[in-house]
Amino acid sequence: MKIDLNCDMGESFGQYRLGRDEAVMPLVTSANIACGFHAGDPLVMQATVQLAKKHNVAIGAHPGWPDLQGFGRREMSLAADETEAVVLYQIGALAGFARSAGLELHHVKPHGALYNQAARDRLLAMAVARAVKSFSADLILVGLAGSSLVEAGSELGLQVANEGFPDRTYNADGTLASRKQANAILQSPDEVAAHALALAQNGIDFSLRHVKVDTLCLHGDHVRAAENARRIRAALAQEKISVEAL
Amino acid sequence: MKIDLNCDMGESFGQYRLGRDEAVMPLVTSANIACGFHAGDPLVMQATVQLAKKHNVAIGAHPGWPDLQGFGRREMSLAADETEAVVLYQIGALAGFARSAGLELHHVKPHGALYNQAARDRLLAMAVARAVKSFSADLILVGLAGSSLVEAGSELGLQVANEGFPDRTYNADGTLASRKQANAILQSPDEVAAHALALAQNGIDFSLRHVKVDTLCLHGDHVRAAENARRIRAALAQEKISVEAL
Amino acid sequence: MKIDLNCDMGESFGQYRLGRDEAVMPLVTSANIACGFHAGDPLVMQATVQLAKKHNVAIGAHPGWPDLQGFGRREMSLAADETEAVVLYQIGALAGFARSAGLELHHVKPHGALYNQAARDRLLAMAVARAVKSFSADLILVGLAGSSLVEAGSELGLQVANEGFPDRTYNADGTLASRKQANAILQSPDEVAAHALALAQNGIDFSLRHVKVDTLCLHGDHVRAAENARRIRAALAQEKISVEAL
Amino acid sequence: MKIDLNCDMGESFGQYRLGRDEAVMPLVTSANIACGFHAGDPLVMQATVQLAKKHNVAIGAHPGWPDLQGFGRREMSLAADETEAVVLYQIGALAGFARSAGLELHHVKPHGALYNQAARDRLLAMAVARAVKSFSADLILVGLAGSSLVEAGSELGLQVANEGFPDRTYNADGTLASRKQANAILQSPDEVAAHALALAQNGIDFSLRHVKVDTLCLHGDHVRAAENARRIRAALAQEKISVEAL
Repeated sequence: MKIDLNCDMGESFGQYRLGRDEAVMPLVTSANIACGFHAGDPLVMQATVQLAKKHNVAIGAHPGWPDLQGFGRREMSLAADETEAVVLYQIGALAGFARSAGLELHHVKPHGALYNQAARDRLLAMAVARAVKSFSADLILVGLAGSSLVEAGSELGLQVANEGFPDRTYNADGTLASRKQANAILQSPDEVAAHALALAQNGIDFSLRHVKVDTLCLHGDHVRAAENARRIRAALAQEKISVEAL
Repeated sequence: MKIDLNCDMGESFGQYRLGRDEAVMPLVTSANIACGFHAGDPLVMQATVQLAKKHNVAIGAHPGWPDLQGFGRREMSLAADETEAVVLYQIGALAGFARSAGLELHHVKPHGALYNQAARDRLLAMAVARAVKSFSADLILVGLAGSSLVEAGSELGLQVANEGFPDRTYNADGTLASRKQANAILQSPDEVAAHALALAQNGIDFSLRHVKVDTLCLHGDHVRAAENARRIRAALAQEKISVEAL
Repeated sequence: MKIDLNCDMGESFGQYRLGRDEAVMPLVTSANIACGFHAGDPLVMQATVQLAKKHNVAIGAHPGWPDLQGFGRREMSLAADETEAVVLYQIGALAGFARSAGLELHHVKPHGALYNQAARDRLLAMAVARAVKSFSADLILVGLAGSSLVEAGSELGLQVANEGFPDRTYNADGTLASRKQANAILQSPDEVAAHALALAQNGIDFSLRHVKVDTLCLHGDHVRAAENARRIRAALAQEKISVEAL
Repeated sequence: MKIDLNCDMGESFGQYRLGRDEAVMPLVTSANIACGFHAGDPLVMQATVQLAKKHNVAIGAHPGWPDLQGFGRREMSLAADETEAVVLYQIGALAGFARSAGLELHHVKPHGALYNQAARDRLLAMAVARAVKSFSADLILVGLAGSSLVEAGSELGLQVANEGFPDRTYNADGTLASRKQANAILQSPDEVAAHALALAQNGIDFSLRHVKVDTLCLHGDHVRAAENARRIRAALAQEKISVEAL
């Protein structure tokens, strides 16, 4: 058995620092790098690609809505063709830094509100998937496990990856518990590690189907990001689950 | 003999229209496409790449300073490494649309204040040239004829193209007359066409050297852009100078 | 009888021109001036305030979502407190130019998606109304006739104005016909003028109530903006309806 | 004797935090609040105005170049009329939040590259001063002690304040030592406090004239910002120099 550990990276901007990229990069196998729309800027993108290269971590684009002030977390309604162009733009921008570093992009994972909207809106999901495929049919599309985004990627013939969240609790029907619920976020590293292991071993049961989890998401701006990553790796290692890129 | 005709394209933004791309594209051999920093947006870039493809026009990136309000015409002082990253970002973004259309980027020509500052500031010129080369050593770097930007490209081993301006007058020493001078802009299509022919045939004489002109720039937002292009082509054809991409 | 004629103005940006402000300003009694978020920039705002002053037109703020690329026409989901701050910021920015011209702001009319979302979302409408009131209780809040935005303003004790659209058709229940319908936009100046007169004389009948129309909106970027304005004024004059600011 | 202690505040943006405003606000007498161009956003501005009000600190606008990515520290060349409009816009935007909090703006201090360019470029300085005066002739213009910006304010009849930097060293001719010099920044709180006292007591000697220092600048993003402020206040108190707003 094997699983990927991914983390959103490169979300600093200009003078502003965010995330613990230096500490977390050695502990993950995939880095989703912000592309300048919701976060990140050209210098940050370049440095983050170099950091990933140094640690031999697979790099992916992490495109978001054009909304720096809202960090891409505010829902926006862009038409499908505009969404496709906005995603393709960001993939290309990051691919330029990858190419300049002698690397190729490996995956694409949308950010924030775009990720959430594409998880439930099939038209939007197809627009994202078309952008990915039009750049390269070899890119892996990462989406919320069991969501419309993953389905859209599959429908277009892309490789897809179902993502699970070790520090988030799930409802009985397989959907994520709302952040507004008291227990939506697991606080203890023990619980997070145990949940990661359960997701890796058992996947997620939706009402009518079962979904295998291909990649686990770490939150790099969390104060215990590095510790959580180490605990998760230890738990997986004990069960002989290999941690490797998609 | 042969020469390239280029034009800045794709400088619309959102709701705002600029330039006569539809009318001018059939008349040029190279299109410099804005990359979203001084002008252009993802949908405009995509449409402009398609328009160039339809007319078999070579496409290049037209990166500018991050200054939409100033249309990239206000000087900015970015450090060399930041300039390099800013240019590479824009090249990558446009290359994504090119790739999605089954095309490859052909050249890079900086825009506005970046073009002018890189023409005289060797450090800045080297930063631009490094960005181009780090994306692809096959890209042609287009700069003001005889300027530091062209020299920087040559120094890094890039193919370069010296650009001349048919509708601008030149000083006796080979530099461009300041736009503040009364006669800086040629108004009559006859004069523009004659000047284009002279640039193509004779190049430019700087005080200590002679520079051949490889490409002529049309201004696509000019009310007579298409007419000027036709007149220039007619004048060149009469002298058996072939118009083709670099 | 009297009615106000308003028009969105100052929606140019940097190098980009939009609208026929010079032609339309002499024909209206209220100008809604963009504040730099969905359109407009400091120089454009300053010039538009001066133009309104010259023609003795009442000036109002025309705040929109922070979305220049989408011209404020894409729905966004900002929290109520953030919406309030975003609207207050824009009112203040325009008020600075008014003050510098020796004028005071007269009204506030939200733009595009913000206008439409606030017309039906009471929480958002209250946020906009709070922003207006916190700047000045003397400002008039302009909203879609009979909408939540107008109600929110009234609830906070603001003067409000119900706005009607002479060039848009209405459903039998008093709501605007969707732009996707074939006949949603009236094309003939005769029809527009007749509709303006009907709105001024009869107001709008919603299923359970009747709403008087206080102000009519002209679309300044319409190719016949000035002609429509003249036709509307003529039709109103014939019926002795005075055109004056709110 | 008395002197003002000022600090740049409200330089967070969206998700990004910068500065120790909560810790520093109780220790200063004037807050220069970023206005959304180089830093700050509507929610941050609103909160910072409230924080200043709570601690009875005089509030001023801290306008910068429109350059969020560069934090307003990159030189830009805007024409004088555009600079004036850009500064007036920002003053108005902050004044809206002040008004909504029942306060009035007290001063204006430009930020970063705008501050430095206006210190030596008289045309730019006059543009800034005109913007201030056109908003209100009662606003105090704060600039580098002895600089063109202060002179421009005086020429227009504004109240001005000469600013000194306790943690920066000065050249023998009264100008600031370049940050590139090894000793340009004083590191020890003892030195900073001693320098603050010297500036307050003796002012600055330029080659041909002497300038009294009216206000001392603290750097709020400094790790020892609060400690430095306390040490400076203690040093001033010992010499019976009162710390109060301009």
